[in-house]
Amino acid sequence: VRAEIVSVGTELLLGQIADTNAQWISERLAEIGVDVLYHDVVGDNLGRIVETLSRAVGRSDAVVVTGGLGPTQDDITREAVASAAGAPLVRRPEIERALRRRFEAMGRDMPASNLRQADVPNGAEVIENERGSAPGLVVRLGTATLFALPGVPSEMRRMMRADVIPRLAAEAGPAAIASRQIRCVGMAESRIAELLDDLFRGSTNPTVAYLAGGGEVRVRLTAKAPTLGEAGDLIRPVAEEVVARLGDVVYSGGDEELEQVVGREMKAAGRTLACAESVTGGGVARRLTEAPGASAFFRGSAVVYTAEAKQSLLGVSSETIERDGVVSEACAREMASGARRVFDADVAVSLTGSAGPEPHDGAAPGLVWLALEADDVAHARLLRLPGDRHTVLRWSEQATLDLLRRYLTGLPLPSGPSLV
Amino acid sequence: VRAEIVSVGTELLLGQIADTNAQWISERLAEIGVDVLYHDVVGDNLGRIVETLSRAVGRSDAVVVTGGLGPTQDDITREAVASAAGAPLVRRPEIERALRRRFEAMGRDMPASNLRQADVPNGAEVIENERGSAPGLVVRLGTATLFALPGVPSEMRRMMRADVIPRLAAEAGPAAIASRQIRCVGMAESRIAELLDDLFRGSTNPTVAYLAGGGEVRVRLTAKAPTLGEAGDLIRPVAEEVVARLGDVVYSGGDEELEQVVGREMKAAGRTLACAESVTGGGVARRLTEAPGASAFFRGSAVVYTAEAKQSLLGVSSETIERDGVVSEACAREMASGARRVFDADVAVSLTGSAGPEPHDGAAPGLVWLALEADDVAHARLLRLPGDRHTVLRWSEQATLDLLRRYLTGLPLPSGPSLV
Repeated sequence: VRAEIVSVGTELLLGQIADTNAQWISERLAEIGVDVLYHDVVGDNLGRIVETLSRAVGRSDAVVVTGGLGPTQDDITREAVASAAGAPLVRRPEIERALRRRFEAMGRDMPASNLRQADVPNGAEVIENERGSAPGLVVRLGTATLFALPGVPSEMRRMMRADVIPRLAAEAGPAAIASRQIRCVGMAESRIAELLDDLFRGSTNPTVAYLAGGGEVRVRLTAKAPTLGEAGDLIRPVAEEVVARLGDVVYSGGDEELEQVVGREMKAAGRTLACAESVTGGGVARRLTEAPGASAFFRGSAVVYTAEAKQSLLGVSSETIERDGVVSEACAREMASGARRVFDADVAVSLTGSAGPEPHDGAAPGLVWLALEADDVAHARLLRLPGDRHTVLRWSEQATLDLLRRYLTGLPLPSGPSLV
Repeated sequence: VRAEIVSVGTELLLGQIADTNAQWISERLAEIGVDVLYHDVVGDNLGRIVETLSRAVGRSDAVVVTGGLGPTQDDITREAVASAAGAPLVRRPEIERALRRRFEAMGRDMPASNLRQADVPNGAEVIENERGSAPGLVVRLGTATLFALPGVPSEMRRMMRADVIPRLAAEAGPAAIASRQIRCVGMAESRIAELLDDLFRGSTNPTVAYLAGGGEVRVRLTAKAPTLGEAGDLIRPVAEEVVARLGDVVYSGGDEELEQVVGREMKAAGRTLACAESVTGGGVARRLTEAPGASAFFRGSAVVYTAEAKQSLLGVSSETIERDGVVSEACAREMASGARRVFDADVAVSLTGSAGPEPHDGAAPGLVWLALEADDVAHARLLRLPGDRHTVLRWSEQATLDLLRRYLTGLPLPSGPSLV
């Protein structure tokens, strides 16, 4: 079954809301093995809706339309479906009765405009709306089935679950799509793709996609099979091969964030952590404390934005600062050491650098020193990060969290200047 | 100018992510009076991308395509644009040089696959990418202009701002939609709507929309007129009336974030700031240092996640902690006082509380104490925040930044337990 999702509403085209209905529907259809090939968004314009629906039913087996079924004058999906079907709108007395009952139950008179919701294209099936006033429509158009559902997410979702999904699942037959992401930090997207290239060349099941952003790359495997279990079986050996090839840059084979991996490892080891942050201004600590239960391992962070604070809070020596500046290996090491001491923590990490746009204490934007100190290790790393201030900040956080992950899992600690 | 937005990526059709790029682009284009008539989403399939692009350039004046410009085999937007344009891909030496420089700066060899990013349809213009490796493309196709931008939001947004928006604004000429947001903190959305109700009843130009989230409410006014100036003239008196009615809960009549208002006021006053954060784990400091130039006023933050760190770093007394616990007015006041002293800052703010889901030191989730100390003031406030951990963290940050804003602009300091 090839499906297409049409979202109707000028508010989508004005960018006032995101098309989360299309995302939700797509996710549900993928789960039952229905291929969604297109999303279309069109405004409250009769001609353009009819044109979009006509093309959709010509190229797809199932078309799910959301929005434009309300009682007001800008709700014209009913008219557009009737026009695309070449069928007149007829008023259904049973819908009218249900609408009147609904308003009576709320102790209200029904506004006349709601009567429009009792009009359906001749021959259409109706999907009952338990949560609102607009019924859904099912219309056969050539070889395609068109479902018109309300745009209100809770109403749309109930109709999808009660009617559309079971119907399309039956049509699609025994089929399911499973998906799994493998998250990596410390290797460029292009290098990852090179290493995996032959695995996926010509492979249509599973397929692979690469998504880069925020200082990491997600490798996403997607497989289709009669059942979710079988789809998972198709993914598993390929995922294992991917992880084996990429090696220790893989930090998660699921949905865990990098900071959650660090938190889990810290708790498992029963150790405590402190940070000393200059350039990131608290960003590393914020990520480590975003998940519940951080107090089990996290002691704190000294956000020391000035040379004076580095000295007074963390005991960085004035000689170091005079000799090497605040963006230096010695300063980073003394910051980590100081944080470990003042927070009485087992492990400490530090960052000092220049995020830009201006150089900081002589250091060019993108130049960041990290250090990690524990009983058994004292390590420093110089990063040269590309990009603007925002990118430098996010990548610096990512590199620090990855340094912690690698230390906690006994991996070699990186020293090169590039995150990827 | 009639525009169309095409988003390329199978992950969108699988429902793995929502098409927030299309929303953001639509919002920006509406602001410059460009009518967006269609959004299309299509997967990583050459034939379907070419078909979609060809239809788009036939019915729209401007087509903005996002996604599929990466270095991997599933990134085929370059090929699709070339095919739609009937122009071969040619390698541009200057892009290749820029790519090699980018990798050299990171101290890495460039993988061969990145070379694909130097291939552009013959005759295309190139938009430089300051944040990543994929350049943007501008191609003239019949009467339409097609812009192909990376799918990574930060890279796409920068290219939109630097190149696409100014170009389309010039083309759109005298038909403009102006939009202005009035940002409020400290009042509920429903109360704001009540106060403004009669102003917008039956008004179609300007229109009003309310957007609540992240501990604030944005009142958005939108007007359409032949020129941006005239649209602005329609908005101005209404905006003034809105600000007059809402009073000092309005913190910005533009796009400035709350932390940017605080930064601007601190710099204007020539004063310095420090924080002491427990519950928010560095979130306040991170926001204050996200914008360039924070070092002009920001000294640092002591992220003290344990009782011991509150004592050793900030000098909170053990008597206070034993008597009142760490989530207490006395602890918050001593934290602010300590931060001001150890960072040698003019002003300090502190937070201590319970974000949940479990109670913290006897305090129920959502209970947060804030304090502010300066030469002329020492103020504390108890918040009782609704919602989950994430909400409590964001609202706590917001309340702290608003306390600073109110102090710096000479407004009465709030003491009630509710942010809205």
